Parts: sequence; C-alpha cells; structure tokens
Amino acid sequence: MAKKVLIIGAVALGPKAAARCRRLDSNIEILMIDQGNFISYGGCGMPFYLSGEVDNVHALRQTSAHVNRDPDFFNDVKNVEVRIHTKALSIQKEDKTVSVENLDTGEKYDIAYDELVLGTGSSPIIPQIPGINLQNVCAISCLEEAMSIRENCAKSKLENVVIIGGGFTGMEVAVALADMWSLKCTLIKRSPRLLPSLISETISEMVRHDLGSLGIDVISEEEVLELRGENGEVKEVITSKRTLKAEQVIFAMGVKPNSEIAQKAGLDCNPRGGIRVNEYLQSSHPHIYAGGDCVVMKNIISGKEQHLPMGSLANRHGRIIGTNVAGGNPVCGMETFNGVVGSWCMKLAKGSASGTGLTVDEAKKAGFDAMSVNVEQLDRAHFYPEKDMMTLEVTVDKKTRRVLGMQGYCANGDALKARIDTVAAMLQFSKPTLNDLSNVEVAYSPPLASAMDVINTAANVADNVLSGVHNAISPAQFVELWEQRENNNYIFVDSRPAKASQILAEKYPDYWYSMPLEGFDKVISKLPQGKNIAFICNSGTRAYECQRKLKRTGRDSVNSAGGMQAMKKRGQEF
Amino acid sequence: MAKKVLIIGAVALGPKAAARCRRLDSNIEILMIDQGNFISYGGCGMPFYLSGEVDNVHALRQTSAHVNRDPDFFNDVKNVEVRIHTKALSIQKEDKTVSVENLDTGEKYDIAYDELVLGTGSSPIIPQIPGINLQNVCAISCLEEAMSIRENCAKSKLENVVIIGGGFTGMEVAVALADMWSLKCTLIKRSPRLLPSLISETISEMVRHDLGSLGIDVISEEEVLELRGENGEVKEVITSKRTLKAEQVIFAMGVKPNSEIAQKAGLDCNPRGGIRVNEYLQSSHPHIYAGGDCVVMKNIISGKEQHLPMGSLANRHGRIIGTNVAGGNPVCGMETFNGVVGSWCMKLAKGSASGTGLTVDEAKKAGFDAMSVNVEQLDRAHFYPEKDMMTLEVTVDKKTRRVLGMQGYCANGDALKARIDTVAAMLQFSKPTLNDLSNVEVAYSPPLASAMDVINTAANVADNVLSGVHNAISPAQFVELWEQRENNNYIFVDSRPAKASQILAEKYPDYWYSMPLEGFDKVISKLPQGKNIAFICNSGTRAYECQRKLKRTGRDSVNSAGGMQAMKKRGQEF
Repeated sequence: MAKKVLIIGAVALGPKAAARCRRLDSNIEILMIDQGNFISYGGCGMPFYLSGEVDNVHALRQTSAHVNRDPDFFNDVKNVEVRIHTKALSIQKEDKTVSVENLDTGEKYDIAYDELVLGTGSSPIIPQIPGINLQNVCAISCLEEAMSIRENCAKSKLENVVIIGGGFTGMEVAVALADMWSLKCTLIKRSPRLLPSLISETISEMVRHDLGSLGIDVISEEEVLELRGENGEVKEVITSKRTLKAEQVIFAMGVKPNSEIAQKAGLDCNPRGGIRVNEYLQSSHPHIYAGGDCVVMKNIISGKEQHLPMGSLANRHGRIIGTNVAGGNPVCGMETFNGVVGSWCMKLAKGSASGTGLTVDEAKKAGFDAMSVNVEQLDRAHFYPEKDMMTLEVTVDKKTRRVLGMQGYCANGDALKARIDTVAAMLQFSKPTLNDLSNVEVAYSPPLASAMDVINTAANVADNVLSGVHNAISPAQFVELWEQRENNNYIFVDSRPAKASQILAEKYPDYWYSMPLEGFDKVISKLPQGKNIAFICNSGTRAYECQRKLKRTGRDSVNSAGGMQAMKKRGQEF
Repeated sequence: MAKKVLIIGAVALGPKAAARCRRLDSNIEILMIDQGNFISYGGCGMPFYLSGEVDNVHALRQTSAHVNRDPDFFNDVKNVEVRIHTKALSIQKEDKTVSVENLDTGEKYDIAYDELVLGTGSSPIIPQIPGINLQNVCAISCLEEAMSIRENCAKSKLENVVIIGGGFTGMEVAVALADMWSLKCTLIKRSPRLLPSLISETISEMVRHDLGSLGIDVISEEEVLELRGENGEVKEVITSKRTLKAEQVIFAMGVKPNSEIAQKAGLDCNPRGGIRVNEYLQSSHPHIYAGGDCVVMKNIISGKEQHLPMGSLANRHGRIIGTNVAGGNPVCGMETFNGVVGSWCMKLAKGSASGTGLTVDEAKKAGFDAMSVNVEQLDRAHFYPEKDMMTLEVTVDKKTRRVLGMQGYCANGDALKARIDTVAAMLQFSKPTLNDLSNVEVAYSPPLASAMDVINTAANVADNVLSGVHNAISPAQFVELWEQRENNNYIFVDSRPAKASQILAEKYPDYWYSMPLEGFDKVISKLPQGKNIAFICNSGTRAYECQRKLKRTGRDSVNSAGGMQAMKKRGQEF
C-alpha cells in the first residue's frame, strides 16, 4: 500500500513540501488540506498589491508562467490532492489520524496518514478591544483582506488609514497606501520606536524619517483602546491620548504561530506558542513534521528559540520536509536544518532597511557584553556617478570581538542586501570576528563596490572603537550633546571642507567651529581649553582623523559616527 | 629615535598602510616613495573615466571631499613624507636599507628603514612584438595612459580600437569606448573564450553576447604578431589570421607582480613572480612586509598560490600592514590575513558578471571531482514588476557535495553581487555543502528576493542533479544536440505554455514538440518511442517537472539547464 502523506496548510510550506515530495516519489499519496479558499500564494506580496506594483491579486497565486496555483493545478499538474474549506480539528498521533471538518457542509471525518506535515502558519495578533468587528477593520493575513482594502481604495472610500502595530507588514502597507493612493496613514505602536528588536535607535530613526517622506505619522508608546464607527463602518480610533479619524483600520501587531492543534496533540511546543522541531524538522513525534510560521527555531547566535515568520523560511523548510517525508534524499538521506540567524529586509519609501543577527540590545539580552557602531559610506566607488550613501551598524561582543549582527539602511536595497547577506552567511556558518569582517572578500569593481568596501569599513570602525583609537558616539548621543549645549560645556568641531562647515559656524559662532581636516594641524591650538569637544564631519572619517590629531596633543573628544549623512537620514537639522 | 617605516609604492596599498600606521602611531617616521607622478589613485576606475562616467581623471585621485591625494596632501594632512619620481633599485635586507634613484636628477642614495613595506604593484604583460613602440599603443596601467586614450577619443582621432587580451580591464575599456565614443572595438585573445579561468563556457558566452550588443567583436584563439603604423602612429594589427584597422591599440593581457626587487633581495617568491607572505603579510624576512598586487596568496579552496591583482585586496592588505608595522593592534596585537577565495565582479554593457571560488574547470585542475550546473531565476519575486533574470552557476565536488564556487550574470549587478558575496563569505569561513547553500538564510522580501531565492535554487538544482533526479545538460550541450538533430535521433520537447512553445513546433514539426507542463500527463504517451528526448522550457523548472513525469514511465531524457532564458542570454536563436 502506498505511503500516505497528509499536509495541513496549503499556503507556503505545504505546497512546497507536496511538490518536492512528489518529484522524489511518484507513488506516495499526498493530500493537502486548508481551511481557506486560496492556496499557494505569496502572502508577503500583499502590500505590493495594495501599492499597485502588483496589478492583479491573482498574480500572487500564479506560477511565473501565469498559471493559477489552485486545487486543480495541484491535482492535475502536481498529482497532489487538495481539499480547501477543510479545517483540521485534532491530531491523534498514536492512531496516525487527523480529524477534520468540511467547512461548507459541516461534515466531520478522520484522515489517516503515515507522515503528517504541519504547515499551519501563523495568525495576526488582534487585541480584543471594542469595535474590532466594525467593517473596514482587518489584518492583512489573507488575500481576501488585501482585496477588500484595495477595493476601498479604488472606490475612493478612504482618506485616513490607521495601522495598529509597526512590523514589516504595517510599514509596507503604510508606504503602499500613502504612496499609491495618497492616503493619510498613521502608524500606532506600543513600543518606543520602530522595529525595536530588529534595529537600533539609529536606524530606527532613519526608518521613521523615511516613512515621514510620505507623510506617514508614527505614534509610539500609545495603546489603542477602542474603535468607533457609524453604520457599522469604522470611523475613529481611540488611543490612550487621542482620537484619530480612520475609515480603514489595519492590525499589523505581528503574528503568532498556529500551534494550538499541535499543543493539544501533546507535541512539544514553546509555552508562548510555536512547535519545537529537531534538525530533520520533526516535531517531538517522529512522524509529524512541522516548519515555517508554526514552529520556533533555535537562533544560532543567541541559542534562544525564535519565531521567524518568513515566506523564505517556509519555502526552505518545505523542501526539506518534502524530501524527508519521501524517505530522504536519494543519495544523502534525511535533510537537515540547523537554525536561524534572523535575516530580513524591507523596501520603504525612499530606501530599504535590512538586517541579520542580533542588534546591540538583543545581544545584551542574550548575555553578550555587546556594543555597536554605525557607519556611513557610499555603496560603490566615490568617483562613480550613480551611488548611494549606505548606513551599516555592526554589533560586536566587546571581549571576543565576535560579530553578532549587522543592520542597515540604504536607498539601493539590492546593494544593502549584498552586505547584509554576506554577514548572514558568516553568522550562519562561522563565528566571525571583526578581523574576519574586515577581510571578508566581497567582489570589487568601482560600479558595484568600494576598494575598501563599506562592509569592511564597518568592521574597521568597530575595531578602532574597541581598540580605543576612535571614540565614537551615536547620532542620537551627538544630538543630545547639541541640544544640551548651553549646559554641558561642549563645543562642536566640524571637520568638513570650509564651504560646508562654515555655514553652521556662522549660524552658531559660540558653539560650532569650522575646522576642516586640511589645515587642522595648524589651528588645533586655537581650540579653547577647558571645553569638551564633539567632532562631526560628513560621514565620520575626516573627524576621526582630526580626533586622532587632537589626541596627540593630549585631549580627548567624541566623534559623531556617520556624521552629517546619518543626521540627514534621521531628518536632524541644525 | 623614532621607528622608520619605508613604503615602496604609493598607489593603493602604500597610502592605505601609511595612513593607518600614522593613525595608530604619531611618532613613527613614515616615508613613501613612488617612481611615478601620480599617487594614491583608483586605477580600477580608469575604464569609467574612458566611458565618461567619471568626468575628470583627477576624481580618481581625490578624496570623497574632492581633495587631491598628492604628496602635499600626504605631507600636510597625513604627516607622511612622499617622494615621487623615486625608483627603488635594490633592498639590502641585512643592512635595512633601500637604494633608490631620483628619476629627475639621476641621483642615487640609500634610505634606512626599521620596517619596509613593498607595495610595488603589478605591470601589464606586453608581448615584445614589432610595433609596440608606435604611438597610440599602450596598456592602461597608469593615469597618463588613460588620459592619452581619452584625449584621442575627444579629438575624434579614433574609429577602430583593438584590445589585445580579454581580462577585466580589456572588456571594461571595450565597453567604455564602444558605448561612449561609438568606436568599433575588437578584442583579440589567445584563449578559446572569455575569462576562461573565471567563468564556464555558459557564462562566458553570455558575456560575449553582452559585449556584442555594443558591436564589440571578440576574436579568440588568435595571436597578435605585429603592429603596423604610419608616421609613427599605429594603423593596423596583424594577427595569425587577419589584418585589423586600429588607430588605438590597448594591451589588456593581464598583469604580473612587480616582485623582481624582492627576488633580487633574496626574499621568497613564487617562481612565476609574486612575493610569498605569511599570515601577518610579512615576506620571508620579518621586517619586510608585502601585499596587494605584488604578492601571491593561498587560495583557501584549492590550496594553491594565486595572484589576485585587485584594488580591494590591496586596501585590505594595506590596513593590516599599516597596523602591523605600527606594532600591531593596540588591543589584539598583530593582524592576520588568511588567504583568498577569488571574488570578482564587473559591469558590462547590458549586465554584470561576478564570481567567487572555483569554476568547474579550475576545480578539476585543483584535484576535485567537480561538476557545475547553471540556473536561471528572477532576482526577486516573480510577481514584482521590476526584476531581472539572474544566471547562477554553482561548482560542486560530486562526492562530498562541497560547494567550491559560484559565478553569475545578471542585468542588475547589485542583485548579482548579493548572491556571489554570500557564497564568497561561506567559502572564506567554512566548507559549505549543498545543504548549506540550500539553507543559507539570505534576507527576504518580494521587492528584493524570492521566497525560494535563486541562491538557494542553485543549490537545489545541483542537489537534484547529483541525486540523480534531474538530468540536466548545459546550454551548449543542448545547442549541440539541436545542431546535430539530423543524425542523433533526438526530439526536442518544449514544456513552456502553448503560446510560447507552438511557434517553434510549427517551424520545426519533425523535431520540436510543444508539450506544456499543464496537460503533459495526458500527452506523454504521444511521445514517439525510440527517440532520444531533450527537454527545454523557459528557465528549466517546468521541463524538470516533465522530465520527472516521463521518468515515471521508464524513459530517460535530458533537460536544458536555464532553458530559453539561458539561450537568449547567449544569443542563441532557433
């Protein structure tokens, strides 16, 4: 009798596992069930459908040859049976059966399996506040919701949109609606800043300023208490501090793994949700596999369990599970997956943000004695005409100089991704030190990189800081010194060429000194004694050189990492 | 008495080492000598000066704040003494002196050092054929030569340019002159194809076709015998097979390390040139450091010595040497460098090419039982509007499944670089297997990557080939089968949707079968028995699925890796 593989969930992991399994074995009976209507779609593409970049919602569920990936497609082309509108109710792991319900008819029945695959995904977190059942209130967790929002846009029903939560989807949706439909978008979040677990304050402020270029307001540290409507449609969002108009409310507070069915069946789960799996992606029961959004994975750097709801992870897991339920790779046997480092990227309004590994805050939480430093450098040779200033921030363990993560922001998302992915690979397969990052051999040619590339520079700056030859402060720390200038006895020394630095020196003659690197040696004695000194230049490098020169005279100073370029990206004016 | 550091060579490594050393130690006496006129310039930027992308040649020797990096700059700003027009004649390593000649006055004198740095760079390889002293014959090894060529362009003196040699610079210069100045460029080379040690035949053909889009002819396997001129100016290039018009001839046959002075001093060198250095970048004499173009480095993958003349390597080496001659990093001591993997990239006419590690040919030479396979996949989500088809070719050791290298071609150079650099990092810091490459956690979002990204797909396709479930052939092998179709009993089965595949089926009714993946199961029995079958589709994936279906009926077949997309990129028409 043929082996029976049952797959619960048919969005990302399920279809991948099914197709892979079938390509390896033509005899296995593969059945995939899903409670929804649409299957095998690119959920992460929904913001780009709202923006109009993706014209037709069905493009998200089509192959690259524009064939709909519907149950017939899976049946006819992939030889995989699919039952939609079919909800899994419980798993009887000793009997190897799953009880399901046909949501159209209410009929309940059991399905027997030899190998079970859980690709149950995740669900949006929605707080149970008054008004959540009003019309035009939704998450963006399925195609129907995206379609409904776009329909409201197209019918000109919307002027104000409030997005509750500030994760990837929330920001992507805000950008889409503000850019394409010129809607007033407001993002409300509980945490003090955007993406607090993924980026530092420095890059977070750049992201906020980026969103601001489309008029998107970000309201932090506020709780939404209630939604109010008229005639059943939402009209207002009430927070702890204000009332906002909103004809559309979108919850984007993140997602939680759909692991209840696994938990009920007695499979080992994280107490906060998420199925635990071994390196073969087997749950605590060897004939039940799980992957994608419904599992927790070990973070390779922190050693902690992490929920990483990404379509990419689901696809990679899907292939491994497809192989393993088919009996393993024909040559090497069971395939393995060894954990995650937490790589991500997102396109914003003017630029993209990306990161991998730990931020300095997350590193500290994981027990590292960590520091981070941000750099600004062009993404290619400075003499090449098309170029963008890239921000990179590297997280390092102070004692061992081990690199723990890198995040960045740049107008050119592909160029940024090149640097982040390089670090991701280092983090995933080694324990890189600053020396490794300083020497990582990325491809070089002036139209695509610098001879001393920004990825290497980030390591070099961190090395200088840890070696005590560069006393860098973050952009926020510089701004704070500047704002407290009447009380803190600081003067601000601008190492940029005279043309750039003199403007502020004339505006603030008591505080701002124009002292270009060229000629700094000659004027160094003119720096008033008894004053604290904060350097700044365009990107940080000229001021670092001046700091070294000043240090030779015995004086300490601080230097604003990333210089004016970092200030500009956060919208700081002087 | 202050320590004396003498640096020979002031183009890339020298200035970097000098500036780094100075920042770490303000007391060391640093003297840098160079026989040329210009110092501290981005030599790799010269092709982009010829193309007009870089407007002013001096941009190549300026800081990003447009300050000329001339001897005065180094003296005044960096506190580094520079003597140009000063040629090093010999090293007396026991005496710690270098004999030099002032090329302006002919004066010879000795310079004493405590630590010597050799940044002598490399020189172009120029065959000693008749006519090489004619005017308008040069390499592009210094700014003066680039200036002379651009002057000839600007004065409309040129119509035909012959470039001898097919390395990076030769191709970049051909693109620059053909694109910006509409010159007829011909590239002549001895080897059978472009970049034979860096890319396979598959990507080599794509590069050739890319150059062809600007009318650049590539002539292979021909030797240049003589240059002929009129009134002292070059007019013709005579090869073993033809005579070509040429008012400008450029040698781009590669470079050789300038290691003669080291060899004469008894330092350990590779017999074919290149100073040998240890992990601290010390030569066989501990007080003589060397790096950049004048050294050979161990290739981490092959274990063999490699000459890697790259501005990026020179910069990384420069920082390490600058640190080490200053006595080491203040905290961690001597810095180290552990070898190279050979990463590179270049912008061509319509796209960019890039690679890292070994090609299949180089891997075989290094003793691996290697194979490679090429894939075509979009560089981001297929539903995202802006996207480019990316070619990647992965080299793998068959037995261990160790990944040995990756090369690629794509219109979006940044996106290509993201994938190549990721593999470079894996190769440099681990011994990745196909399983690792299949799972490498690159950042994902639809505007920047695919959920199953092309980098993972490359591993998966190679895995399928090695596991015997995918019988792929290279584009060239498919073309050969097609061209031999009257004799080899092959039929060609096109799995693309009917609209695409029927055109060729109608054109070649006896050979080309339109059998879209959808519905293939139903027509599989119509495939004539007794025929050999070669599949093709758009990118290789649909045909792979059909190949699996056919295999279930007991029939073998081959599938054209990369499909029609690979064909298009090599200019193959049917």
